[in-house]
Amino acid sequence: MRILTGLQPSGKLHVGNYFGAMEPAVKLQEEGDAFYFIANYHAMTSVRNPDELREYTRELAVDFLACGLDTKKAVFFRQSDVPEVNELAWILSSVCPVSLLEKCHSYKDKVAKGISPNHGLFAYPVLMAADILLYDSNLVPVGKDQKQHLEVTRDLAGKINEAYGEGTLVMPEPIIRENSAVVPGLDGQKMSKSYNNTLPLFGVEKPSKKLVMKIPTDSTPVEDPKPTEDSLILPLFRLFADDAAYAQLVADHEKGGIGYGDFKKRLAEAYWDYFAPMRARREELMADPGFVDQVLAGGAEKAREAANVVLDRVRKAVGLA
Amino acid sequence: MRILTGLQPSGKLHVGNYFGAMEPAVKLQEEGDAFYFIANYHAMTSVRNPDELREYTRELAVDFLACGLDTKKAVFFRQSDVPEVNELAWILSSVCPVSLLEKCHSYKDKVAKGISPNHGLFAYPVLMAADILLYDSNLVPVGKDQKQHLEVTRDLAGKINEAYGEGTLVMPEPIIRENSAVVPGLDGQKMSKSYNNTLPLFGVEKPSKKLVMKIPTDSTPVEDPKPTEDSLILPLFRLFADDAAYAQLVADHEKGGIGYGDFKKRLAEAYWDYFAPMRARREELMADPGFVDQVLAGGAEKAREAANVVLDRVRKAVGLA
Repeated sequence: MRILTGLQPSGKLHVGNYFGAMEPAVKLQEEGDAFYFIANYHAMTSVRNPDELREYTRELAVDFLACGLDTKKAVFFRQSDVPEVNELAWILSSVCPVSLLEKCHSYKDKVAKGISPNHGLFAYPVLMAADILLYDSNLVPVGKDQKQHLEVTRDLAGKINEAYGEGTLVMPEPIIRENSAVVPGLDGQKMSKSYNNTLPLFGVEKPSKKLVMKIPTDSTPVEDPKPTEDSLILPLFRLFADDAAYAQLVADHEKGGIGYGDFKKRLAEAYWDYFAPMRARREELMADPGFVDQVLAGGAEKAREAANVVLDRVRKAVGLA
Repeated sequence: MRILTGLQPSGKLHVGNYFGAMEPAVKLQEEGDAFYFIANYHAMTSVRNPDELREYTRELAVDFLACGLDTKKAVFFRQSDVPEVNELAWILSSVCPVSLLEKCHSYKDKVAKGISPNHGLFAYPVLMAADILLYDSNLVPVGKDQKQHLEVTRDLAGKINEAYGEGTLVMPEPIIRENSAVVPGLDGQKMSKSYNNTLPLFGVEKPSKKLVMKIPTDSTPVEDPKPTEDSLILPLFRLFADDAAYAQLVADHEKGGIGYGDFKKRLAEAYWDYFAPMRARREELMADPGFVDQVLAGGAEKAREAANVVLDRVRKAVGLA
C-alpha cells in the first residue's frame, strides 16, 4: 500500500497545517509505504520570490521532520528533485479534457476572488494527478477541498488505461479526512493563511502567545458563568489539552468567577507546551543542516527510482519509447 | 546564433512539409548552430496510437536525414529524449496568464472545427515556448500560422526575465517564412493533411503519380490554348522544374495542341525525379537502422547537455534550486 501526501511550501506552517496534514501523515507512515513530498513546483503558482521559495521549502522539510516524519519509514523528497513528474503531467494533458479543468472549484474560487489566473493554477490538477500517479500510489489522504482534484486524478488514470491498456496507471483511492478541516482559526473560521487567522506552528514565543491573548471574547463579567457554545477558546484548547484539563476549563467556564484572560493564558500555555518536543527537535535539525540535506538527497534518490519504473512503463505504453 | 525548428510526427510527410519546413531547415543549417527536433510530445495531442507515434517519429527522423539534414552541422533529436522541456514548461506556466492561451488562434480554430479540446492542445504554446527557450534559441523560422505562438514565447520569456532577472531566458526572434505557406495542394488550397490534398514526399511511385494525374482541369479541347491562370499544374511544376522546363510548359499551354494529360505527366515525372536523390538516400538509411539510432542518441546527448545549462540557470533563478 503506497500512501502519498504532498505539502505546499507557500509560507510559514500553522497549527491548521499540523492537525490537517502533518499529524495524519505521521500516523499513516506506520500503516504503509509512505511517500511524502514538498510540492515546490505547485508553490510556484503563488510564490514569485525565489529566496522565499527556497526558504519555505527548506523550512517545510525541517518542520515536517520535527513533527515526527520518520525517514526510516517514509520516503521524503522535494517535488522538484523528481522533475520526471512534469513529463507525466504532459502525457496526462493529452487525454485531459479542458472542460474537466474548467470545472474545478479551487480554480473557479481563485478566479472569483479576483486572483488573475496563471496557467499553472489552471493546470494544477494535472500536475497533482501526475504527483500521485507517478508513484503508483494506492492511497491519498485528502481534505474536503482536494476531493475534486482526486476525482480528476482518477478520471485521468482511467482515460490513460482506456486508451493505452489497463494497468498503465494504478488507480488511487482517497482517504477523506472529514475531521481535518475543523481546526478553527483565531476568529472561528477554518484556520487558513488566506483568512489571516492562524497560529504559527513554530513561531516566536511572545508574539505567538500574544495572538492567543487577542482572541475575541464576549463581555460576560468575570464573576458570571461563561458560555461554552460558540467559544473560540474551547475548541482550540481541545486540540492541545488532555481530557482532564479540557474538562476543568469547561467547568471553570460554567462556574463563573474566572475571566477570559485566565482561560486564554491556559490556552496559550497548552498550545506552547504541546509543540515543545517538536520545537526541541526542530532546534536540533536547524543546527545540523547537513542532516536535512542528506535526508532530502536520500529521499530524492528513492523517489526517482520508483518514478522511473512507472514512467518507463508509461512511455512505452503511449509510444514515446 | 542558435536556430531552432521542430517538426511534428503526426503522419506521413508531404511535399508541403518539405518546402515549408524541411528545405528551409536544411538551408539554415549552413548559417548557424542548428537544433532540429522531432516534436513527439506535441504529436501526442492528436496521435493516440502508440505504434503510430513510434512509426511516425522514426519515419520523420529518416525522412529529415534523407532530405539533407546534416548531423555534422545540426543537432538532431527527439523531443522526448530531453524530458527536461516539460519542467521548463511548468515554470513558464506559472507566469503565463490563462487569457494568453485562450486567445491563440490555433486553439480557437481547432475548437471551432469541433475538435474536443484536450489540455495538451490548450497548453501547446507553453510547451512550444519551452522547446525554444530551453536551448537559448536566437532564431526560430516560423510559418504564418505559428507567428502568434512565437509571440507567446517572447511574452513568456519577457515575464520570466521581469520576475526573475534579465538574462534568465534568451529572447528569440522569428524568421517569418512568408513564401512557405504557398505550396498549393492538389485542389489549389494550401497543401495540408487536414485538407486531404497532399502529395506524399516519399510515397509509392504508381499511386503517387496517379494523384497528379487526377488533378482537376477545365474542359479546354486539346487543340486550343490552355489558360495559365488558376492552373493547378503550373505552380506545382514550378517547385520541381528548372526555368527552361517551366517556360516550356507555359509555352505549351499558350500554344495549344497538347492536352492536360501530357502536362500532368510532365508534372508527375518532375515531382518524382525531384525527390529521386532523397529517395535513394532514404533507402540507404532504411537499410541501416543502427545509424539512425546512433544519430538520434548523439543528438539527444548534445541537446540534453545544452538544455541542462539553461535549466540549471532557470532553476536557480526561480528558487527551485
